[in-house]
Amino acid sequence: MVTSLSLGEISHALGGEVVGSPHTRVEKVGTLENADERCIAFLTQDRFVRDLQKTRAGAVILGAAHRDATALPRIVCRNPHAYFARVSAILHPVTSVAPGVHPSATVDPSATLGNDISVGAHAVIGRQASIGAGAIIGAHCFVGEGTAIGAGARLWPGVVIYHDCHIGARCILHAGVVIGADGFGNAWEQGADGGRWIKVPQVGRALIGDDVEIGANTTIDRGAIDDTVIEAGVRLDNLIMIAHNVHVGAHTAIAACTGIAGSTRIGRYCRIGGAVGIAGHLSIADNVEISGKTLITKSITQAGTYSGGYPFEEARSWRRNAVQIRHLDDLVKQVKQLEKRLAQLERKDR
Amino acid sequence: MVTSLSLGEISHALGGEVVGSPHTRVEKVGTLENADERCIAFLTQDRFVRDLQKTRAGAVILGAAHRDATALPRIVCRNPHAYFARVSAILHPVTSVAPGVHPSATVDPSATLGNDISVGAHAVIGRQASIGAGAIIGAHCFVGEGTAIGAGARLWPGVVIYHDCHIGARCILHAGVVIGADGFGNAWEQGADGGRWIKVPQVGRALIGDDVEIGANTTIDRGAIDDTVIEAGVRLDNLIMIAHNVHVGAHTAIAACTGIAGSTRIGRYCRIGGAVGIAGHLSIADNVEISGKTLITKSITQAGTYSGGYPFEEARSWRRNAVQIRHLDDLVKQVKQLEKRLAQLERKDR
Amino acid sequence: MVTSLSLGEISHALGGEVVGSPHTRVEKVGTLENADERCIAFLTQDRFVRDLQKTRAGAVILGAAHRDATALPRIVCRNPHAYFARVSAILHPVTSVAPGVHPSATVDPSATLGNDISVGAHAVIGRQASIGAGAIIGAHCFVGEGTAIGAGARLWPGVVIYHDCHIGARCILHAGVVIGADGFGNAWEQGADGGRWIKVPQVGRALIGDDVEIGANTTIDRGAIDDTVIEAGVRLDNLIMIAHNVHVGAHTAIAACTGIAGSTRIGRYCRIGGAVGIAGHLSIADNVEISGKTLITKSITQAGTYSGGYPFEEARSWRRNAVQIRHLDDLVKQVKQLEKRLAQLERKDR
Repeated sequence: MVTSLSLGEISHALGGEVVGSPHTRVEKVGTLENADERCIAFLTQDRFVRDLQKTRAGAVILGAAHRDATALPRIVCRNPHAYFARVSAILHPVTSVAPGVHPSATVDPSATLGNDISVGAHAVIGRQASIGAGAIIGAHCFVGEGTAIGAGARLWPGVVIYHDCHIGARCILHAGVVIGADGFGNAWEQGADGGRWIKVPQVGRALIGDDVEIGANTTIDRGAIDDTVIEAGVRLDNLIMIAHNVHVGAHTAIAACTGIAGSTRIGRYCRIGGAVGIAGHLSIADNVEISGKTLITKSITQAGTYSGGYPFEEARSWRRNAVQIRHLDDLVKQVKQLEKRLAQLERKDR
Repeated sequence: MVTSLSLGEISHALGGEVVGSPHTRVEKVGTLENADERCIAFLTQDRFVRDLQKTRAGAVILGAAHRDATALPRIVCRNPHAYFARVSAILHPVTSVAPGVHPSATVDPSATLGNDISVGAHAVIGRQASIGAGAIIGAHCFVGEGTAIGAGARLWPGVVIYHDCHIGARCILHAGVVIGADGFGNAWEQGADGGRWIKVPQVGRALIGDDVEIGANTTIDRGAIDDTVIEAGVRLDNLIMIAHNVHVGAHTAIAACTGIAGSTRIGRYCRIGGAVGIAGHLSIADNVEISGKTLITKSITQAGTYSGGYPFEEARSWRRNAVQIRHLDDLVKQVKQLEKRLAQLERKDR
Repeated sequence: MVTSLSLGEISHALGGEVVGSPHTRVEKVGTLENADERCIAFLTQDRFVRDLQKTRAGAVILGAAHRDATALPRIVCRNPHAYFARVSAILHPVTSVAPGVHPSATVDPSATLGNDISVGAHAVIGRQASIGAGAIIGAHCFVGEGTAIGAGARLWPGVVIYHDCHIGARCILHAGVVIGADGFGNAWEQGADGGRWIKVPQVGRALIGDDVEIGANTTIDRGAIDDTVIEAGVRLDNLIMIAHNVHVGAHTAIAACTGIAGSTRIGRYCRIGGAVGIAGHLSIADNVEISGKTLITKSITQAGTYSGGYPFEEARSWRRNAVQIRHLDDLVKQVKQLEKRLAQLERKDR
């Protein structure tokens, strides 16, 4: 069954101004590049106006600045990207799941199950766990003892939440996410035989706020003593590592492959690129933006954009340039010497 | 039961020239270093000739250039590494799996199952999914609604494939692989309270070509609107992140821990090292080689080798040199000034 | 039921000297910052003495140097961190698990099960596998054919161990760990159509020593021909990649997101930071420390600390400085030229 909406129906629901026929009907979203006449596409940036002019979309969503950049039926609105997200959510509702507890699931009798939940095949819900109303627990998920899953949360298949953790309302956790595993806590004990690591029990929890989305195979460790905390509205991409006792402020977004070491505090509204590494016990201010692959070794106290990626080049010239980094301090000293000698000559010359 | 083959039998099946007794029998593969007389080993590079001379292997595979580098029974062939791979596949057949659908598996009645498939314990096959002939679905795998698995594909335990995806024939997906999770699509909506991220539904698919191998815990997100595409013959190592709408060209190989951001297009026959980061919306030409840990921030239009790793050194000298990078632009200006002042003195002196 | 211990009982069990009332009772561990009077906290470094003076903990563990830094009841000992770890293990015993084999688990009749084991819901134990006495196999774990799990080992939910591997006694493997997947072994075969990768069968094993802990979603590949080896007492954090035929020496600790390429040998007692990349076929000496995000491209033969992170800065200055790296070799040449010209002037001047 295909959902179809007219532009008039859309603007009635979501606001914005229809330019062109409000009876234009669309069935699905598309990119300007690949849309057909059943699609509604969107434009956010000037550089895509060329695509707009060639698009075969049936309708488009755009801002006031591009109001006249096309003759297609269109919706003019303040934030085309967010507007498009909402239209897409209506046209493409999330696949429904079977309600109820799948007969193959293993639910401890002491667990609390809210109304209208779905527990998938072979899922395991531990002792004293609680699943909020409307939550969807995917196949093969594991919800540990005493853990609470908020109302309307969705765990895709194969998510593991250890004991005593908390997942907020409406959170989305993708496959392979692991929440609440032990942090990397080890005490070194010297010994006659050379010594060994003693495991430091990780007795804190991992607490995830409301409306957080966490990408596939990302891991968030439980706290060592106090808790690891992810505040509301945070967005985490795939394969991210959040170590024990990290605190991520509300509405911060972190791209894939980034790692944050223990006890670091990230502010609110930060935007952190992919493959960033942030050392432990640091504090990052609100509204900080960090470029991809940057290594952060000191606290950042001011909002702003920070970078630290090494520039790539052809291997041959890279070999020539990179090797000189190992002599950079010497080069600086050499230049200082030249400066001195030159100044001396200049004095004589005067 | 041990398979054993004579060099004559091997060369009959795979070509190459036997030097020494064709009746020499081997049971398994070995490294030059650790092989015993039941083993067949191989040599590809000059630097291992020393190992060849000390090996206790029963036979070796090598190229014409090394034909006389040993007195052992041997097979001389064009590509010893590929030849060895084929011999190993014969001597070490993949562990057989129980045919049929394990009684503990959950297979939706609307799914299509090919001949001679194996579905492991506790696996879940969703509505309208299809499993090609001879495919092996490991224990705890999840195949989402409408997803098609190609003939002869092998999913090791714990693989998750979301809905509406396609996995090509003879693909090998290792444990923990996640295909088709939502891409990192978020629209920022400013608000009186500071604002929040609106989820952009991810309605594209992830399409994996034939003969692709994907390493453990690697994630490939579904497209936002159009599809994410991995072409035939691609090799992906472990813990790789392929973001939404990335396109990876045929026969490209990517080493572990690499991340490729959204909508980037990678060419065919590329070789990308480990822990590489490639920014979004870029285009990388065919036959590009990228060294490990390089950050790619611009499109690459020419085949060639590209690098960008920062050279390591002892921490003490690293501290001295790295700090100077923060003054590199000043140093360049200082040298320009010296150049000017020196030229002035020289002019006077002339 | 709350465990409670007096300082006298603790020192009786673990040594150390009680200063203040030995009858002081504690129920749980706490940080100096957040402890209440039921907690015992610990101090290791001078910089936390300020926290010590403000703490509301009921008791603290500290070294002789800080013996008089507080008036609280306290235990003075040689290694407060390790002592604290042991106290925490007593006050916070690991959650007990149901003994026996869960009825939903799938255990091959040919598997060997030790005494007092626990096999969780939906776990799969393969043919000829063996589970040592007291081992805990979590829900959804997969233990492959012929694999041996040591006595007292704990696999958290969703761990996958391929066939013919060995996990030592008392190992702890966190959720999503994959041991023994195929290494990234591919032989390139040129062809009229451009060529393709031939899979090199991975016939070695992955052998994990006793008392190893492995973090969530970390992957350790099996060997190509010989084995991949992790020696006793090693600590691996989350999302680490250990490639085929790597050898990690005893008691080495590796932080999250680090990748070690094939056949590299890491010494004993090394401490490797997060997001480090170590190229293949290298050898790293014992007692080597490597800072986070360092790329190691050559063997390290001397104990010591090695670094190679690019320093971050504000994006604006980063853009100015980083671009100059691409001209660093030219700058060095330019400085050499200046040096020559200046020397000539100086000679004339003399």
